[in-house]
Amino acid sequence: MKRSDATSRLAKDQPHPVSGGVVAPKGFRCHAVEVGIKDPAKPRLDLALIVSEEPAVCAATFTSNKVKAAPVRVSAEHIRRGRVRAIVANSGNANACTGPRGIQDAKAMCAAAADALGLRPSEVAVCSTGIIGLPLPMERMRPHFPALAAGLQNRDGDRVARAIMTSDTHPKSMAVEVMIGRTPVRFGATAKGAGMICPSMGTMFCFVTTDAAVAPDELKKATLCAVEYSFNRISIDGDTSTNDTVIVLANGAAGNRRIESGTPAARQFRAALGHVMLTLAKMLVNDGERVTKCVTIRVIRAATHLDARRVAEAVANSMLVKCSWNGGDPNWGRVMHAVGYSRAARLKEEMIDIYFDGLIAARAGLYAGTPIEKLKKVTAKRDFTVTIDLNLGTADYHVYTTDLSQEYVEFNSQEYAIRVAR
Amino acid sequence: MKRSDATSRLAKDQPHPVSGGVVAPKGFRCHAVEVGIKDPAKPRLDLALIVSEEPAVCAATFTSNKVKAAPVRVSAEHIRRGRVRAIVANSGNANACTGPRGIQDAKAMCAAAADALGLRPSEVAVCSTGIIGLPLPMERMRPHFPALAAGLQNRDGDRVARAIMTSDTHPKSMAVEVMIGRTPVRFGATAKGAGMICPSMGTMFCFVTTDAAVAPDELKKATLCAVEYSFNRISIDGDTSTNDTVIVLANGAAGNRRIESGTPAARQFRAALGHVMLTLAKMLVNDGERVTKCVTIRVIRAATHLDARRVAEAVANSMLVKCSWNGGDPNWGRVMHAVGYSRAARLKEEMIDIYFDGLIAARAGLYAGTPIEKLKKVTAKRDFTVTIDLNLGTADYHVYTTDLSQEYVEFNSQEYAIRVAR
Repeated sequence: MKRSDATSRLAKDQPHPVSGGVVAPKGFRCHAVEVGIKDPAKPRLDLALIVSEEPAVCAATFTSNKVKAAPVRVSAEHIRRGRVRAIVANSGNANACTGPRGIQDAKAMCAAAADALGLRPSEVAVCSTGIIGLPLPMERMRPHFPALAAGLQNRDGDRVARAIMTSDTHPKSMAVEVMIGRTPVRFGATAKGAGMICPSMGTMFCFVTTDAAVAPDELKKATLCAVEYSFNRISIDGDTSTNDTVIVLANGAAGNRRIESGTPAARQFRAALGHVMLTLAKMLVNDGERVTKCVTIRVIRAATHLDARRVAEAVANSMLVKCSWNGGDPNWGRVMHAVGYSRAARLKEEMIDIYFDGLIAARAGLYAGTPIEKLKKVTAKRDFTVTIDLNLGTADYHVYTTDLSQEYVEFNSQEYAIRVAR
Repeated sequence: MKRSDATSRLAKDQPHPVSGGVVAPKGFRCHAVEVGIKDPAKPRLDLALIVSEEPAVCAATFTSNKVKAAPVRVSAEHIRRGRVRAIVANSGNANACTGPRGIQDAKAMCAAAADALGLRPSEVAVCSTGIIGLPLPMERMRPHFPALAAGLQNRDGDRVARAIMTSDTHPKSMAVEVMIGRTPVRFGATAKGAGMICPSMGTMFCFVTTDAAVAPDELKKATLCAVEYSFNRISIDGDTSTNDTVIVLANGAAGNRRIESGTPAARQFRAALGHVMLTLAKMLVNDGERVTKCVTIRVIRAATHLDARRVAEAVANSMLVKCSWNGGDPNWGRVMHAVGYSRAARLKEEMIDIYFDGLIAARAGLYAGTPIEKLKKVTAKRDFTVTIDLNLGTADYHVYTTDLSQEYVEFNSQEYAIRVAR
């Protein structure tokens, strides 16, 4: 094989962007309508539907919060049955802490969507995001389902992205095409959630569609793996919402040979799915005028994976460290400090090096002598990486985090008042 | 015994306030001087000494942070030897992340104090608070030790309280007298640290003096117990500083019979020491214009003590819950939410009741219907209690926390810049 062939083949292996969002893959349609779930006087897009024209394979991960919203419980049950091919989602009300009535309403949403689509209710997954503790206005929502189904189209996935927004400042949507074996396969995706701005109230959704044909067990493994390296790296304080949901639908319309675990095709599929989710996860972190910094916390050479993770999460979650980023302050002492209380089993203060991008700030636990003004040029940027080298072993971990701004506090101390006043 | 006798005896058992702070107990002297440790151009009280005129018994607890400041390491060693009777403390520099030079400087502080007092260095404990990562200016400090010793007096304990302040807005000092058996015994105490305002950089110190005669093992147990119910209940996110230190000195000058574990006198001693530390811990939480709310999070009827503690700490530490308090917002949904991700082993959403002071906000996991305006009257107050009834067992836990204010973020994003500019 000549070099030019190798290069073009490599380029073909890389996912390349296409338009259409969740309906970029073959055989998917979507629509969204204005119900006014939160405020009937101010209708906005708030009820969305994604559907595969053919039966699909579905995998999902849900919040680890023990207080689970009704739609999470109902969707988990439907996905377990293995026939889900549609997703109905609303914003404006989370249907969480709503008891038996909440379960009934979540099932009613599935039934209404299924009815309009000619499917069984167990073929529909349901997702809700918004206010906690108030019942869904089902009587107001129900009449909109026929129009929701009648409007299904395969051009504009952004419409769904807009309908699931809450505190997000812009819709998040993407699609890529990638070669799997010799077949072009597409992935479409949308997500919502304002990442670190709103780590708990801000429910995170991610819906991925793909026209790849893939074995159910491989889809499950690929989904878990992609979530681990994307959304689990931004949900950094265990502060998962009652409603967090990732759903992947694969309908096989691309006509590729079915992807089985352990094959080269599975590796290509996992790489592409991982790319899609990581891109969306970074969009969540980046979202919002209230975030002024996106910081990658990279822990290297820890004794164990768990130690690396504990250190990364302690630093990423420290309110004082986050305040430093906000001030553009290369405060390595606060980082050291958070490392110290991280509950990592093995730490040696006198072995720890800390870098801001490529510049060393602390060497062997002590100030490394790099002029503060030089370090400040790194922390003045919107994106930078803090590397913590524990010099003890071979385990690495990284998380994506943000600063903590006065606007975050202002926003979050007012939100409920706004809701009550609605 | 007549009722009036019983009443007066009960009253005598209660600690009653006396003046003098750490030198209120017999046989203690203190002083503080201006060195200008942080800024020679702006000298302020920053070097303090407390000493017992006679040999004393000493107990202490230190930070659980694995990055320990040099003075913590040196003091722990001296206290282990069992002869500590003096405390030398400075503000303006934490002597943390300073390597072998830091250890040498901490030992030099003990030696300089011992020299001026005619003691051995191992009879002196040393504490430092302030900037991390810069060496102590020992050459500037050393000449002040003779004046520090020469000025020792037994009237004004507040002078020490002022000298150990950093981000505190006012000195924290108290003293009480209590009957142990038939002997009046005094406790004096001072503390620094701005509690939740500054959970990590704000090192916490508490120095307690008492003229009680007490067995070393009982003093140790009583100290651990008092710390557990006071300072450990405000250090709510494991976010302990590199320098946190509690030291208790007991010199026996009151002339009581030596207090041994398991006796009625030990119970009285523990109650008094617990009262002293809890009072100071609450002063720390209350301190600072940046805190607008002091909230007690009380978890009741958990399945286990660990579950109760995890729930209390998750709620107390949630940034979003803290933002709610700041806005005076009775947001029980966010509380429920933090309960859900607390990692408590046993939780049943449908069993959880949440109260704001006496008012029920959520019953059996659902909105209890209490008008929001009524709940807001509670959260409008500076002090209130949130009770979370898990309805599963008999274990309780409580912590003291605060809101999260925009001013906190502003203060902590500027601090380092101010320090660098000094």
